[in-house]
Amino acid sequence: MTNKLIYLDNNATTKVDERVLEAMMPYFKEEYANPSSMYDFSRKSSNAIKEARGVIKDFVNAKDEKEIIFTSCGSESASTAIRGVLNYDRNKKHIITTKVEHPCVLNLYQTLEKQGYSVDYIGVDSNGELNLEELEAAVKDDTALVSVMWANNENGVINPIGRISEIIKSKNKDTKFFVDAVQAAGKIPIDVQANGIDLLGISGHKFHAPKGIGALYINSKTMITPLIAGGHQERGKRAGTENTPYIAGIAKAAELAVDGLQYEATEIKRLRDKLESNIINKIYNARLNTSVANRVPNTTNIGFEYIEGELILLHLSDLGICASSGSACTSGSLEPSHVLRAMNVPFTAIHGSIRWSLSRFTTEDEIDFVIEKLPAIIDKVTAISPYQKELQALKELRK
Amino acid sequence: MTNKLIYLDNNATTKVDERVLEAMMPYFKEEYANPSSMYDFSRKSSNAIKEARGVIKDFVNAKDEKEIIFTSCGSESASTAIRGVLNYDRNKKHIITTKVEHPCVLNLYQTLEKQGYSVDYIGVDSNGELNLEELEAAVKDDTALVSVMWANNENGVINPIGRISEIIKSKNKDTKFFVDAVQAAGKIPIDVQANGIDLLGISGHKFHAPKGIGALYINSKTMITPLIAGGHQERGKRAGTENTPYIAGIAKAAELAVDGLQYEATEIKRLRDKLESNIINKIYNARLNTSVANRVPNTTNIGFEYIEGELILLHLSDLGICASSGSACTSGSLEPSHVLRAMNVPFTAIHGSIRWSLSRFTTEDEIDFVIEKLPAIIDKVTAISPYQKELQALKELRK
Repeated sequence: MTNKLIYLDNNATTKVDERVLEAMMPYFKEEYANPSSMYDFSRKSSNAIKEARGVIKDFVNAKDEKEIIFTSCGSESASTAIRGVLNYDRNKKHIITTKVEHPCVLNLYQTLEKQGYSVDYIGVDSNGELNLEELEAAVKDDTALVSVMWANNENGVINPIGRISEIIKSKNKDTKFFVDAVQAAGKIPIDVQANGIDLLGISGHKFHAPKGIGALYINSKTMITPLIAGGHQERGKRAGTENTPYIAGIAKAAELAVDGLQYEATEIKRLRDKLESNIINKIYNARLNTSVANRVPNTTNIGFEYIEGELILLHLSDLGICASSGSACTSGSLEPSHVLRAMNVPFTAIHGSIRWSLSRFTTEDEIDFVIEKLPAIIDKVTAISPYQKELQALKELRK
Repeated sequence: MTNKLIYLDNNATTKVDERVLEAMMPYFKEEYANPSSMYDFSRKSSNAIKEARGVIKDFVNAKDEKEIIFTSCGSESASTAIRGVLNYDRNKKHIITTKVEHPCVLNLYQTLEKQGYSVDYIGVDSNGELNLEELEAAVKDDTALVSVMWANNENGVINPIGRISEIIKSKNKDTKFFVDAVQAAGKIPIDVQANGIDLLGISGHKFHAPKGIGALYINSKTMITPLIAGGHQERGKRAGTENTPYIAGIAKAAELAVDGLQYEATEIKRLRDKLESNIINKIYNARLNTSVANRVPNTTNIGFEYIEGELILLHLSDLGICASSGSACTSGSLEPSHVLRAMNVPFTAIHGSIRWSLSRFTTEDEIDFVIEKLPAIIDKVTAISPYQKELQALKELRK
């Protein structure tokens, strides 16, 4: 018996929407011109890119489409923003970020520390909410950059980006503010102007465009040194022949995402809340790792105390259910989640923590199936836990 | 009346082969898993990447598939190789390249010069052939890197890569050798082992994969600092969720390219030679910018003396014929080709030089159509040239 796929790992990647694929197809077929070429044949390709840039400009509410460049992924957007700002003005050597950023950002900062930068990593409380006083105190005269994610990939917590920008700019108006919006884009409205953002990165495959396309907003007042130098493409800020199909694709995906924001905020949230409350109510050793209201609507992170998450995932996978124990970018490593550690999630719950992330393709039937099947899986895994005494105590406590 | 498209600009980009598109489709549809995820659903995606890596390993004849990383384009491959080597060992500050490299490479070296590197640019003769004595003399104790393109995008000239490697290594065995093979891959056999290459970059869209995917060979003895740092992907050498569809696509395109090398060397060459000899014979002010035997089979570059190339291209475009006056990456700029200038092509021919680049989709009918239509176009453009006296003299001379 093979099971239907129940995909609840949409923070890792998403299914390409059929309408996105359809929007890309002409550029895989007859419209294959290099968009930079001079002849008539390239006109449709170059127009597609121009239009897409306008769509992404609206998607993040930039002032001007010149502020948008296309990249190959969220990691490239982040690297371009961070290294771009630091390399443009090499005098300032102080950076502020958070303890719960995505690994692609954290790894880059660790590399920069080795290259002579000083980096402050701001902490979060047990709900995953950023310590704004700590952030405020950290901003100094030589702070080149503050980089904060809009929404966390593991627990879905939304940072108060507008407030953070105010704090930064009130202490040092020259400090640049980079926002990794990879997990926010498509889930909540993005507005770079209203939130005082200098640079903002997004990744298409988190909102139903393919893997391999991202975008970066760079405020017209913010200068960067390009990461991938070379040709004149993207106003000299990103060389390489333009990936016309994917650029058309991310634009279509952005349009669909905007159309779906209401559905995300209501229906997806309803399904997420149903999954969350049922798990917490039905399974005595389940622990909601954060319950703050200010979360993206599709994400919940639940710890199953005294048991191993990897084993839960295996049993889920046998039933065709995809969830994850953290970022796919760190999978393979057995290191417990740096996000949950920063939140001081008890050691006994970190290892058994599972992230569930829904999308507009998630159905109520799927959620019901997970709610039905999960208790038996947890029972099975709990039965072989070496912590039987602690589990018994927990059971009594939560009765 | 609309004309059929006659696409003779395959060095700018190529049509995606239908078989490549077919190979990508499953990863745009049901197989959308993040290849780094742990559940069963990701297995087909991660296997596809593993297989593709093996195909590219064979394509360039690397020793081990661990030596292959996937990138988003040729420019990223070049930037990763060049900055990667230089950033890994920051003590050596001397670089050697050529005057005829692709703009994406030359621009990067100009940036590096501003950052304290010393760069020697090796010249070419009037046929576009590299001055190997000059190159040999330039290799010094602190030469970190020599970077030479395998085949030139504008004139198709093939550099003697194996010989160049011998020269470099005999003078300094620690100097790394990076080869930009973007215009060679798919047109001639690539063998990194036989040619003593340390790093080699290719770009899928030059051989019928889509725009937005490249690969980089990094010899197991060569260390680099990653350009896009972050996740564990590509053995830590290139972060970002893997672009599964395009990775499957470039592998399929590489297989097809290997199958087509014989056709490239015979039939495409025959069509190219037919186009070339007919233009030269029929049009008195046509000048073959290089005629060396050692050229990729699909490329010819012909100057039309005393007239403007842009005007020729416009007339060609009206007939549906796509050719170009240089690299698409510099289009929009009116600067004459740096390659033709390095070859000392007379000023009066540089501005009227046209690159014609064929592919396996080029038909004899298309070539015949161009041969038939071009003389009238050149006549028309020549008639309005301000150099009538010089043209008359040339006509007499070539009678």
